[in-house]
Amino acid sequence: MLLHLQKSDMKFCSECAHPVSLKIPPDDSHLRFVCDRCHTIHYQNPKVVVGSIPVWDQEGKIKILLCRRAIEPRYGYWTLPAGFMENGETTSQAAMRETREESGANIELHELFSLLNVPHVDQVHLFYRATLLDLNYLAGTESLEVALFSESEIPWDEIAFLTSYHTLKFFFSEATSPETVTPSRLYCHDILRPLNLKNL
Amino acid sequence: MLLHLQKSDMKFCSECAHPVSLKIPPDDSHLRFVCDRCHTIHYQNPKVVVGSIPVWDQEGKIKILLCRRAIEPRYGYWTLPAGFMENGETTSQAAMRETREESGANIELHELFSLLNVPHVDQVHLFYRATLLDLNYLAGTESLEVALFSESEIPWDEIAFLTSYHTLKFFFSEATSPETVTPSRLYCHDILRPLNLKNL
Repeated sequence: MLLHLQKSDMKFCSECAHPVSLKIPPDDSHLRFVCDRCHTIHYQNPKVVVGSIPVWDQEGKIKILLCRRAIEPRYGYWTLPAGFMENGETTSQAAMRETREESGANIELHELFSLLNVPHVDQVHLFYRATLLDLNYLAGTESLEVALFSESEIPWDEIAFLTSYHTLKFFFSEATSPETVTPSRLYCHDILRPLNLKNL
Repeated sequence: MLLHLQKSDMKFCSECAHPVSLKIPPDDSHLRFVCDRCHTIHYQNPKVVVGSIPVWDQEGKIKILLCRRAIEPRYGYWTLPAGFMENGETTSQAAMRETREESGANIELHELFSLLNVPHVDQVHLFYRATLLDLNYLAGTESLEVALFSESEIPWDEIAFLTSYHTLKFFFSEATSPETVTPSRLYCHDILRPLNLKNL
């Protein structure tokens, strides 16, 4: 999960290189960066982070694939495979791509399981339920290691982000065996207050 | 629904005003605008459009509030109230704000009803089910008029965007009376091919 906080301020117009000012344009209600020369309005909007919950059926017991982060923020902490959605792709394509990039896992993607708002970092996180198809996973460049965990084995104190933490908690609140993993609803949750950890 | 297609190209670095180049940064797989002087990578990501399905119970019959667009694209066509999510807000806050701005409607927001990917314009659309609380709605600056429609009254050939169209079709596939509007699932749909209409 490459969660580089992108700087939300801008100094120069990307259209004409003139300095920009922060102002509320006519018929608008929000402060925007506006070019003082060519008058381009530079809108900034939340980003979508998409990932998966890769489920492995180990003799009737649920195991989940987690990645240990090889990058900041939260280097060394564990997360569900996820990352920023790219232009030109769908949310499910993004979930497949990020899972493959970070964990090398071959998955079958199922329904959208959770939607979590993180307004203090201008992000919306989406996690899809998935079936891990084999054990040929391999840590990508953004992961130190990739491993399977049962509910009791998950390092709950070492989860990188509250979005992964809540998604895992929601998942195990319903799924007790591989036969009960089909959820009856979409889990939505707003993370309205940062803890004392940057960008959690 | 303010769907100004934002230009996805950039000419100058917003950090240092130097010209940018399109290249794949190290450890990346996508083309990015990269500053040739300060080396800032300017990521561009999909935008989230959020709206609502305002339901009015007219003597046991469902009516939906639609807005007729006063702006391009799709001037004069009808849409569910929706617009771009802003930094610092949650998806449900965005749905409330956009509904109020475009229709003046007082609504109670319920669960997320639909998620629609529109990858050819780099957008994800989300619609929440809502109850219209009174008839004190009023067209905002982006709407020519606002009106209530039963399923048979909806101007199906004059709906501005496929995301509104599909969401309305999904909604009426389940909801036949105000008592049956609680859906059993989230509707997901990918709009993979533009019609011969720009930005539909």
